Amino acid sequence: MPSSRQIHVGNLLIGGGAPVVVQSMTNTTTGDAAATLDQVRELAAEGCELVRVSLPTGDEVEAFAEVVSHAPVPIVADVHFDWRLAVAALEAGAAGVRINPGTIGAERGVLEIVRAAAACGAALRIGVNAGSLPKDLRALADRGETAAALVEGALRYASLVEEWGFLEYKLSVKSSSVPETIAAYRALAERSEVPLHVGVTEAGTAWGGTIKSAVGIGALLADGVGDTVRVSLTGDPVEEVRVAWQILAALELRRRGPNLISCPTCGRTEVDLVALAAEVERRLQPLSVPLTVAVMGCRVNGPEEARHADFGIAAGSGEGVVFAHGRKVATVPEDELVEALFRAIEG
Amino acid sequence: MPSSRQIHVGNLLIGGGAPVVVQSMTNTTTGDAAATLDQVRELAAEGCELVRVSLPTGDEVEAFAEVVSHAPVPIVADVHFDWRLAVAALEAGAAGVRINPGTIGAERGVLEIVRAAAACGAALRIGVNAGSLPKDLRALADRGETAAALVEGALRYASLVEEWGFLEYKLSVKSSSVPETIAAYRALAERSEVPLHVGVTEAGTAWGGTIKSAVGIGALLADGVGDTVRVSLTGDPVEEVRVAWQILAALELRRRGPNLISCPTCGRTEVDLVALAAEVERRLQPLSVPLTVAVMGCRVNGPEEARHADFGIAAGSGEGVVFAHGRKVATVPEDELVEALFRAIEG
Repeated sequence: MPSSRQIHVGNLLIGGGAPVVVQSMTNTTTGDAAATLDQVRELAAEGCELVRVSLPTGDEVEAFAEVVSHAPVPIVADVHFDWRLAVAALEAGAAGVRINPGTIGAERGVLEIVRAAAACGAALRIGVNAGSLPKDLRALADRGETAAALVEGALRYASLVEEWGFLEYKLSVKSSSVPETIAAYRALAERSEVPLHVGVTEAGTAWGGTIKSAVGIGALLADGVGDTVRVSLTGDPVEEVRVAWQILAALELRRRGPNLISCPTCGRTEVDLVALAAEVERRLQPLSVPLTVAVMGCRVNGPEEARHADFGIAAGSGEGVVFAHGRKVATVPEDELVEALFRAIEG
Repeated sequence: MPSSRQIHVGNLLIGGGAPVVVQSMTNTTTGDAAATLDQVRELAAEGCELVRVSLPTGDEVEAFAEVVSHAPVPIVADVHFDWRLAVAALEAGAAGVRINPGTIGAERGVLEIVRAAAACGAALRIGVNAGSLPKDLRALADRGETAAALVEGALRYASLVEEWGFLEYKLSVKSSSVPETIAAYRALAERSEVPLHVGVTEAGTAWGGTIKSAVGIGALLADGVGDTVRVSLTGDPVEEVRVAWQILAALELRRRGPNLISCPTCGRTEVDLVALAAEVERRLQPLSVPLTVAVMGCRVNGPEEARHADFGIAAGSGEGVVFAHGRKVATVPEDELVEALFRAIEG
């Protein structure tokens, strides 16, 4: 897969080999600057590096400016229908604006946004969604060619802004269908060097949406497609950030905090491994060091996995062995295993 | 990706274009036949089509036979260290045995298992795990070539059993590292037509392990690699089955029950969409029909997504529109939306 080119969004680098950026979106009322800023800070504390805030009408511009000026991370405005709102967001200090030219309408409006972004040194995301395709492409989608319609839409707008000399943009081609999302992004990455914002749109609730997002975003990132990710869940956006980091950690692309390996229990398990793993997970939570910790209840793969992890427990029959960096450091009764593990980790 | 060949495991077809089979493993004490059988039935009721049961010692053979004879789905025995246990499981009616020749040891033991499987018309899974590689391959893994070591291990045993004329087997090359798992299965699928059992081993707890599994299994299935899947979670195996089905549904490979599309809330959302989506998800739960239902709180993508789904809600500003098969069927106040949606679904 050819590498994408690099853009700036505020102080962040996106594309061109930069680490994949984690982003999310506030769901507070934007007009309530204090609540929105609280959520931005909460998201940033969870590792969200870029936050999108919707700007539905001109009434929220003042609050949006307030959020931008106090936010600990760059803020992108999400604007639809009215190009003037995008320009206002840029003038208020947004690091970028997300537009869907399909909802902006006339080309002149898009040009005004591009001019304002260039003048402000800001970036754009041009996001084409299956749910809001321009008419001719909707017809293509209605014939079953949704991925092709998304890619054509994105490339059409990309050509347009590049004709105007604007390069500080990224593209997205989200669909609520995971196979369509994968197909569209793969095709787009083959045909373009523009950095890509990847995600599955309207993925669903915390449980089902997490799985859809992990499959879709994961399949793309596994092949090097995607420069920034947003997990879309119906729920608390903080959970979106946690899921995004877990996807990156699963692929060993980036890690924030510990990685827990724990075996599924089976008829061979002789200890209460579910409780043991849950307790270890709970106590690892506050750590932000990238450690791998194995909690194994099995004589088959246990000792080997525990030996390979930074720290590990291999438990069986009322007692267990604690490993640190490949060496046995303690053999203790089951009820002292967690303590012994954390003594090793913290020691 | 070349298609795999097809094998039988009990009454199931695996590989060669058959639907991807969902499997899991009991975590009851196998010696407790009643508890194990209860769990097998519970798993089957959730859509688990093949259940693995560990057989740690000869003491559990009688209970294992009892489980096999009453189980509503084929049972595979999980055996390590002692080939006699595998033979006993086959004689007890197991539809298959999962072995890791690395833990069985001497080639003669493996031959005895293959002979017994052939005599019983049963299948084998030859599963090589990063945690239990034979010594020479462990050395390769220790040099950082784990995926290659897994593939070499699997192909070595595959050659062995094929020399003995045995073809009713599948392979697995699981690692607790997602990138290693993806790399190993992709390489194996390139080099072999044997059906593949895919999964990420020791993926972790219900939350983190679900994401790792969705990324790893999803990336493989997205490219057609994988004929049967097992999600490994430290927890209730019923959750493994639900996650497996959600991965298959996300990729539109198979579907069990409804598919919910719901938008992440944002500053534009004017209704309590999280509550609305949760209520719709709860009421869809008992349905096993493959419906797509969209719950949208957004004027931007809402109506289009709701129109494309089988049934949908597009809500905004205290009221919403219900769609059925692309047509508006009702406009009702927010608090009547769920009722109106289910009237349309059940109508």
